[in-house]
Amino acid sequence: MSTRADTWSASQYRLFEDERNRPIADLLAALPPFAAPNAIDLGCGPGNSSELLLARYPGARLSGIDRSPDMIAAARKRLPAVAFEIGEVESWSAPGPYEVILANAVLHWLPDHERLFPSLAARLPRGGALAVQMPDNLEEPTHRLMREVAARLHPQIARQADATRTTLGTAADYYRWLRASCRRVDVWRTTYHHPLAGGVRGIVEWFKGSALGPYLTPLDASARASFLEAYAEALAPHYAPLADGSVLLPFPRLFIVAVR
Amino acid sequence: MSTRADTWSASQYRLFEDERNRPIADLLAALPPFAAPNAIDLGCGPGNSSELLLARYPGARLSGIDRSPDMIAAARKRLPAVAFEIGEVESWSAPGPYEVILANAVLHWLPDHERLFPSLAARLPRGGALAVQMPDNLEEPTHRLMREVAARLHPQIARQADATRTTLGTAADYYRWLRASCRRVDVWRTTYHHPLAGGVRGIVEWFKGSALGPYLTPLDASARASFLEAYAEALAPHYAPLADGSVLLPFPRLFIVAVR
Repeated sequence: MSTRADTWSASQYRLFEDERNRPIADLLAALPPFAAPNAIDLGCGPGNSSELLLARYPGARLSGIDRSPDMIAAARKRLPAVAFEIGEVESWSAPGPYEVILANAVLHWLPDHERLFPSLAARLPRGGALAVQMPDNLEEPTHRLMREVAARLHPQIARQADATRTTLGTAADYYRWLRASCRRVDVWRTTYHHPLAGGVRGIVEWFKGSALGPYLTPLDASARASFLEAYAEALAPHYAPLADGSVLLPFPRLFIVAVR
Repeated sequence: MSTRADTWSASQYRLFEDERNRPIADLLAALPPFAAPNAIDLGCGPGNSSELLLARYPGARLSGIDRSPDMIAAARKRLPAVAFEIGEVESWSAPGPYEVILANAVLHWLPDHERLFPSLAARLPRGGALAVQMPDNLEEPTHRLMREVAARLHPQIARQADATRTTLGTAADYYRWLRASCRRVDVWRTTYHHPLAGGVRGIVEWFKGSALGPYLTPLDASARASFLEAYAEALAPHYAPLADGSVLLPFPRLFIVAVR
């Protein structure tokens, strides 16, 4: 999901679906068992997280929202039986209750987590679970350099694009914010190391489907190409090719499971 | 497992079994499916990892080794049908082949990973998997302060005890060392955040069952008590109690799954 519907391409996002599904599977594995929960997939993207949620809870009554029409169209095509709607997490107000609230790779686009997280947990019935996964990579070279290249080439766009991502709290922050209303709060941070073919070009392709969106959308085709060229050049010294020509992309993610 | 059989108490180790089982479950979830593999649990401890391995592969023909007689006794009691033997990973030479080689929380006690890891992978048949999890916490306050307190109170013991743990390679190191002979190498690093009751005393109890062993074993009861007192005092400023009196213990662990 994103703050701008038009920065998202379902097809580009799906290019790395295997890698992007791994953290979802890890997140869902930490959830308690439920027989046939009411479940919602907030920021459902093209439906890959919804599919894994259904595999975890085959009897679930599942719905999903995303602000991107392209993503919702892809999700409906993938899972015709699920109620997918265009919608915003901030204004989500379906009555529920939802035994499972999943928010995969979406809440890092939203501000004020100290208020947001407890407000989501408050929608759970007793025993219900909130499951969150967020990229925690703003200080990785991939993202520092994205900001630096943008600041150099397109300072105006850089300022706007930088502001679309929220700086995450610490693990202890989320624990405190949720523990007040939840009986169990499990927080962990995992850095995956994805081998990507094609050297730093592989990294560029990866982030074209996500974090680069807000930087690229305002540019025309030629400016986009120059931006990506400069970005790849900046990445190169930080991601040395391995013997097989691939690079390892370290990708830190923060996970939170809170049971009310 | 440990470099000194007598530093290990199965009962103390089991105090935090839920927390210690979580990384094992996460590790096993990343393994490929096998029908009825020959499997070995290297450094099996009291058999908790073996139990989870059997749950993952119910038809497995499983054996396990550990250098601690106390641990092997506990493992045999837990799983009478499994062939547990006292033995050392370094000199392990059963013919195999083993489709699954599990080494949970043991290889960080052994040196020379650049040689050790490929030598374990070489024991796999094609398609077989090596699964490794190692605490990666030597630079955490828990371990820095353990070394500092020991150096101050018992410098002689500190030097010996410090040397029992191996400094881990980077994720990229393990990837390179294994990728040469394995078709797929998956490396990730997870920091769990365990809420422990009783403030820093909870942390002391945790590590009495593992990392503190080499520091405590050479001491008499009174010197042990003084050591633990000084250690708890040193920990306090780094692990502030939460509203409920517990502390969060961040615990980083490195995971490696290599498929030959």
